[in-house]
Amino acid sequence: MSIPDAKIHPVATGVAAKTVANHEGPQDLIFHAGWFCPYVQRTWITLEERGIPYQYKEVNPYHKEKHFLDINPKGLVPAVEYKGKALYESLILCEFLDDAYPSYKPTILPADPYTKAYVRIWVDYVTKNLTPGFMRLVQAQDPEKRKEYVGELLAAQRTLAEQVKGPYFLGEEFGLVDVALAPWIARDYIVAQHRGCKREDAGEAWKKYADNLAKRPSVLNTSSDLEHYEEIYGRYLRDEAQSESAKAIRAGRAIP
Amino acid sequence: MSIPDAKIHPVATGVAAKTVANHEGPQDLIFHAGWFCPYVQRTWITLEERGIPYQYKEVNPYHKEKHFLDINPKGLVPAVEYKGKALYESLILCEFLDDAYPSYKPTILPADPYTKAYVRIWVDYVTKNLTPGFMRLVQAQDPEKRKEYVGELLAAQRTLAEQVKGPYFLGEEFGLVDVALAPWIARDYIVAQHRGCKREDAGEAWKKYADNLAKRPSVLNTSSDLEHYEEIYGRYLRDEAQSESAKAIRAGRAIP
Repeated sequence: MSIPDAKIHPVATGVAAKTVANHEGPQDLIFHAGWFCPYVQRTWITLEERGIPYQYKEVNPYHKEKHFLDINPKGLVPAVEYKGKALYESLILCEFLDDAYPSYKPTILPADPYTKAYVRIWVDYVTKNLTPGFMRLVQAQDPEKRKEYVGELLAAQRTLAEQVKGPYFLGEEFGLVDVALAPWIARDYIVAQHRGCKREDAGEAWKKYADNLAKRPSVLNTSSDLEHYEEIYGRYLRDEAQSESAKAIRAGRAIP
Repeated sequence: MSIPDAKIHPVATGVAAKTVANHEGPQDLIFHAGWFCPYVQRTWITLEERGIPYQYKEVNPYHKEKHFLDINPKGLVPAVEYKGKALYESLILCEFLDDAYPSYKPTILPADPYTKAYVRIWVDYVTKNLTPGFMRLVQAQDPEKRKEYVGELLAAQRTLAEQVKGPYFLGEEFGLVDVALAPWIARDYIVAQHRGCKREDAGEAWKKYADNLAKRPSVLNTSSDLEHYEEIYGRYLRDEAQSESAKAIRAGRAIP
């Protein structure tokens, strides 16, 4: 079977390539990653924000190494290998890093139970509305559907922006809502260029918040050259992508 | 507009009515609930399991009180009112109860960071596969679709069952995977009777695990008489339900 996604650029480029180069030596924690994947970037941002020592390993999604599949049979990235055992799911990994490395401050979740739950509510909002809303719009081919999805995405962005204290979600501290969202901000030029959905269309509060996320060092340091994302998103924009996420959006299912 | 869901039975019945009667006095923590809702039951089970003092308040979904809407504008249940502020989302509430009441042992999540993340991975599996899979099957009208959805649900049940140590997910301790799933086990007679999808069809491991969850005291004590669930599920079985969850399943969107 021909897999159109198979021609992906093999490694991180630009600033992200430097970050990879700084994390090639062996460490207790191995970060199995794909440079292009926004879910991977969530965990990567968290590792960078908290200064946790890690070894970066690029996983070729079409030629996965035996060791990686042995510890992580589904072969999903991002995955973290920790004391010989694997964990996956981007946001679960971010929370795991808080739990396993509590002395690396600040943590990505606040300590206060109420505020922690409040953050999780809005992370859930990002996961249920902003992330699938973005991908639905990217993959939409019908002009009427595109219009509908632009409206839905802007409405969701406005709803989130109302909660933002600034410069980040909770104020001065960069935390899990920011982490959950930032990779899609780093890629929002795709919907601006191809679907006419710009940051400023969701209002000034969203524009300001998105700009702050986009220029955060941990976001920049885990971002590759734009031209290589373009290759990947070209397939999504034509709705030809064969990733599990692309198929889920097409089928109206939760993104796995 | 006529809302078919509006004729819901107003209060808990059977064993659950006794649990409600034991939690009518004022407490610092107010649990805003709907007796019929499986998401509510997750949080309710957690409160009961951990012996946390709470005041139960039944929310009539079609006549919400002003105070409730003031603190929780979306009006979602389950909601927890804690020091005058509201939180919602069933699983977030379960984790909040761990964080806010750490001295009530055992907690619903294990202390070890790796095991905690492992539990979250399988809670996520329940949320993405078992819960929507159940509702998709209940709402399906086309015989071919029903067959397809039965197959998907059984496969997901088998996958989860492979991870179960027994009698509960992690072994002797009843925890968050069990909590996340139990309300749909308490209601699985609906798909057995109306869609021909029985516990034993997913194999012996699933049957045993589901039976263990069904007879857990916290599950029984938060369950109303079956006949009143029947009234509600009748609307779902005819795909006439107008709840947000029913509409999301119909539209192929994440359950809000």
